Order: sequence, then structure tokens, then C-alpha cells
Amino acid sequence: MEDYSENVIPHNHVLKQNDRVQRNKYVPKLLWFTGLSGSGKSSLASSLEVHFFNLGYNTYILDGDNIRGGLNADLNFSDSDRTENIRRIAEVSKLFLDAGVIVLTAFISPFKKDRDFARELVGQANFFEIHVDCPLEVCEKRDVKGLYKKAREGKIKDFTGIDSPFEAPTNPDIRVNTANNSIEVCLQELIKVIKPKVRA
Amino acid sequence: MEDYSENVIPHNHVLKQNDRVQRNKYVPKLLWFTGLSGSGKSSLASSLEVHFFNLGYNTYILDGDNIRGGLNADLNFSDSDRTENIRRIAEVSKLFLDAGVIVLTAFISPFKKDRDFARELVGQANFFEIHVDCPLEVCEKRDVKGLYKKAREGKIKDFTGIDSPFEAPTNPDIRVNTANNSIEVCLQELIKVIKPKVRA
Repeated sequence: MEDYSENVIPHNHVLKQNDRVQRNKYVPKLLWFTGLSGSGKSSLASSLEVHFFNLGYNTYILDGDNIRGGLNADLNFSDSDRTENIRRIAEVSKLFLDAGVIVLTAFISPFKKDRDFARELVGQANFFEIHVDCPLEVCEKRDVKGLYKKAREGKIKDFTGIDSPFEAPTNPDIRVNTANNSIEVCLQELIKVIKPKVRA
Repeated sequence: MEDYSENVIPHNHVLKQNDRVQRNKYVPKLLWFTGLSGSGKSSLASSLEVHFFNLGYNTYILDGDNIRGGLNADLNFSDSDRTENIRRIAEVSKLFLDAGVIVLTAFISPFKKDRDFARELVGQANFFEIHVDCPLEVCEKRDVKGLYKKAREGKIKDFTGIDSPFEAPTNPDIRVNTANNSIEVCLQELIKVIKPKVRA
């Protein structure tokens, strides 16, 4: 008989998500940030990731920087490609959840049906839709990346809020307002709601 | 002044792979298994994953079960779709490495150019090409899933080894022979070579 100690898994076992949850002592969730360009999705996701990382959890952010230049480099910003973009992000998120990693996605994700697809794919219990709410005027005034200016000049097509719609969530799991509140205040709101659901 | 203890990362920091390596105490690698259907890729990958999991590492297997039905459900087995299949798998692997997860991929991946793409994408230092070597006759005799029989009967098209080529690696990082050796012996060979490279 093999001398496996109590917590050691035998080599012929196929690891499942539950093995990781048991060991890691937290439950991975998909934290889906949605909002206009410049609303603060990435800043919030990044701050929340650090919070969970500091608790010893495994975390990862999917955003334009690591997705649009790689996996989805073959896609543009037409409605159909936006849908395929979100489909792939949702499928990759599902893999990360299976691997025991808390996933934070920071994409405009303007279409309700695409966000609903993601929710359904990973299951309602594993999904938090986080609406980073900030009026277009405020986002456009911030214009951190200069994208709104270019969109207004017609140099960028299909820009959400300008010539492409944003379907705001009607009933998100969490809504934070970054026009009236600091990132730190919004972060604390997120932590208050999400943290209890991530604890194993 | 905030009372951050030495190892706590401030909220405005954007996490990088190195933060994860520092904390997790191992270096994530992409362990790319290639070989004919029935050669033993999945069994070996699964056993190796358990080995690393038992060391406390974060691991994940990408294989047909979790990729073909999800992210790559839109692809078939034509040469061009096989290439796109591997491209996406390589891109997803890169994300997992960035997230600090050891990735084991178990796909036939019959084309040298596709495996080379994966190697180049994540970098040679992060990549192990593992050739699970087993003669076609042996794989076909095992025929665990009954696929060779169907391919011979023409019920499956583009089946590697039958009517689609397998370009065996000429210079893999590791080659194990599963026709002459048990899974356990092959596993020990893999551990001997890979484990020192994963230790931080």
C-alpha cells in the first residue's frame, strides 16, 4: 500500500476544480466589469485584484492589453466581432475558474446578450456583473487615452458611447459610481459584497 | 501612512508575473505534450499535474475535453482550423503563464510549425516540448476510444496517422517512449528534467 499522507492526491487522479478549492481555501469567481471607456474598470479591477492577491488568492485580469493583441488579434470592433471577442473571453474565464483562479475582466462589453452569455456559461453563482457607472460626459472629459477626441473626429469608428451603443445593465450584481466617488470608496464597496462569496 | 507589512502590495500596483513568482515560489512553464492519439499524452499530463499540485503549485491542463467543446467549438479538423486551434491554445497558455499557472497541454498538435509558434510565443525558456513517442501500430492496437477503427472505416476524416500527417519533433526537449515503458517510468523521467526548472 502506498504511503500517501492524508492531503496528497495519487498520481492517477484527474484534478477537478474542487480539489483546488479544497487546497486553496477560496472559491474562484468571475468578476465582470462593464462600463464606458474611461469609466475606471481597469483601475478598479486592478485594485481589487491586489486586495485578493494580498489575501494569498490566485487572481488574473483579462483586459484589452492581454487579449486584443493576442488571442483576439484577429477580431475588429464590428458588432459580430465584439460578440466573438466576448464569447472567447467568457470561455477563457471559464478555464481560469476551473483552474481555481479568480478572474477579473475589464472590457466595455456593451451588449447585454454577450454579458448574459458569460453569466450563463460560468453559472450565475460564479458570476458578478459589476457596472462601473460613469456618465459619458465625465468619461469624455477625462479622455485619459485621447480616444473620445479621435472618435468625435471620426478617426475611430464604432466607438462605444459615440457611434456604437452601450446597453447599461439594468440589474447588475453591483453598481459603483466613479463620477461621484473615489476609486478607493468604490473598491471598498466591491470588497464588502464580493469577499464573503469568495471565502471557502 | 498606511500600515502595509513588508510583503503586502499597495492597491495602485498593477500585478505582474514576477509578483506571482515571488509569492508562489515556483516558475510557471508551458509543458507541451505532442503525440498520436492514444500515445498517453493525457495520462502523463494528468499524472505530472498531480505531482506539481502536491508540491503546492498552481497547475492546469488544456486538452480536447475543455477546449474543443468551448473556446474552439467553432473549429473543425481541417489543416487551417488545426492551426487556429493550436494558435488559440498557445495564446491561452501564455495568459495562464502570466497568471503564474503551470500549463500542461495535451493535444496531438501534429504540425511542427504550430508547435514552433507556441514555443516562440511564450519563449523558449518557458517551453518544454514533450514528445510522447509511441508507434502508430501500438496506438492503433490500444485504440482506447475506438477512434482508429472509425478512421480506418472512413467514418472520421483527417485523422492523424491515418489520413492526416504527424510531424514528429526532431529535437524535442524531452522524449518519452510509452510503448516500452510504463506511465510511471515516463513520469519519473519528466519530473527529473522539469522539476529543477520550475523551482524558483
